[in-house]
Amino acid sequence: MVRYRAVVAYDGTGYQGFQIQAAAPTIQGELEAALARIFGTAIGVIGAGRTDTGVHASGQVIAFDADWRHSDDALLKALNTRLPAAIAVQSIRQQPGFHPRSAALSRTYRYDVAETAVRQPLLQYRTWQIPPSLHREAMQQAAGLLIGTHDFATFGTPPKGENTVRQVFASYWTEQAADYGALLSYRIEATAFLQHMVRRIVAMIVTVGRGRMTLEAFETAFRSASLKHAKPPAPPQGLFLESVKYGD
Amino acid sequence: MVRYRAVVAYDGTGYQGFQIQAAAPTIQGELEAALARIFGTAIGVIGAGRTDTGVHASGQVIAFDADWRHSDDALLKALNTRLPAAIAVQSIRQQPGFHPRSAALSRTYRYDVAETAVRQPLLQYRTWQIPPSLHREAMQQAAGLLIGTHDFATFGTPPKGENTVRQVFASYWTEQAADYGALLSYRIEATAFLQHMVRRIVAMIVTVGRGRMTLEAFETAFRSASLKHAKPPAPPQGLFLESVKYGD
Repeated sequence: MVRYRAVVAYDGTGYQGFQIQAAAPTIQGELEAALARIFGTAIGVIGAGRTDTGVHASGQVIAFDADWRHSDDALLKALNTRLPAAIAVQSIRQQPGFHPRSAALSRTYRYDVAETAVRQPLLQYRTWQIPPSLHREAMQQAAGLLIGTHDFATFGTPPKGENTVRQVFASYWTEQAADYGALLSYRIEATAFLQHMVRRIVAMIVTVGRGRMTLEAFETAFRSASLKHAKPPAPPQGLFLESVKYGD
Repeated sequence: MVRYRAVVAYDGTGYQGFQIQAAAPTIQGELEAALARIFGTAIGVIGAGRTDTGVHASGQVIAFDADWRHSDDALLKALNTRLPAAIAVQSIRQQPGFHPRSAALSRTYRYDVAETAVRQPLLQYRTWQIPPSLHREAMQQAAGLLIGTHDFATFGTPPKGENTVRQVFASYWTEQAADYGALLSYRIEATAFLQHMVRRIVAMIVTVGRGRMTLEAFETAFRSASLKHAKPPAPPQGLFLESVKYGD
């Protein structure tokens, strides 16, 4: 048995998230089904991050063990032939002992907000659509406050047995002009994330951007380290797991 | 009755094109159904361009006649509330006598090609995916040959009673780097288009880009003005009707 490490991209629209479930379509479920079809036996898949229902990935990282007699590239092709159109392996290689969760140094997520006066049908499964005019400077300042090692309890609950302290390496907005208005993208790189953390952060920053919360109130809510100040998470379809960083 | 002029955007994925059909979902059918729900009577919609099954639009232009007692903005909102998520009116105004087809000076289409070694699930309904490495310079030169007034019979059949001569104002490729490789966008602005013309042009230019047809052979096929030299049309999901130009 050889351990394989692979990067996977997916359109999360039709799926109940990454993690396998008994009676619902999931990304992990489809990956394990494709492996079972190739190898004729059950093969478990480990993922670096558990994306939620409707959340996408361009750079999810997975690992699995298999006995494969051909090239890595032939395995990539065999998988992509058997995976549904919404999921595709981007690259694959052998790496003994590799574990996508415990070896990860950081994960980077992107969240896309379309600032538009009217619905944009071509972006419906890819963005959160917000009417003009978002206050950019306040949003950038709010994003900047999160950089560093902090208690992020305001933005989510931890997995059982973990605390709510995380280290954020980068947190910023970029912007592209568009026919309909503007596409605002938020990127956050951190050691790890609490459940719904990125979507709760975006929801609160957008509240600031809309002028419905001051930057001071944002900072107070953040420093309170209490989920009772949380906003409902921003909708899932704007969120993308972009990449996972390892030491190698 | 007042004539209204509107810009409409849509995701063509689930639709059998723009033009209404008896037993298939179409963009025109949905627009007329929304108008019927608002006004309680059948209202016909005229479109500037008949996009095919799976083809998208960010700037389709339509016209219809209606008796509306409220503001233009209220009509836009009433329509967008009743239209499916895949279709949305972008702007609307009154313009007596406006006809979106006969008054059009030009239409601009965009066709997106993703140059990528592996399938990109997030682009499956938005691009034609082609493996590296496309020869940019030859593609740009092929595109440039089409500018001017020419017989485009190599690239499609005309509507009944029309000839195959069209005037092309612009025809060029642009490129954006991407994680997966590159996004190559072809834009063409012309007085009007033959059936499948943009998709046949893209198919033949991509054949040149892949090194499977010389630029000289492309020019010979184009100048022959004969559909017998045509390639099968490029797939519909990469095509977008971007805008329609009028004299005003």
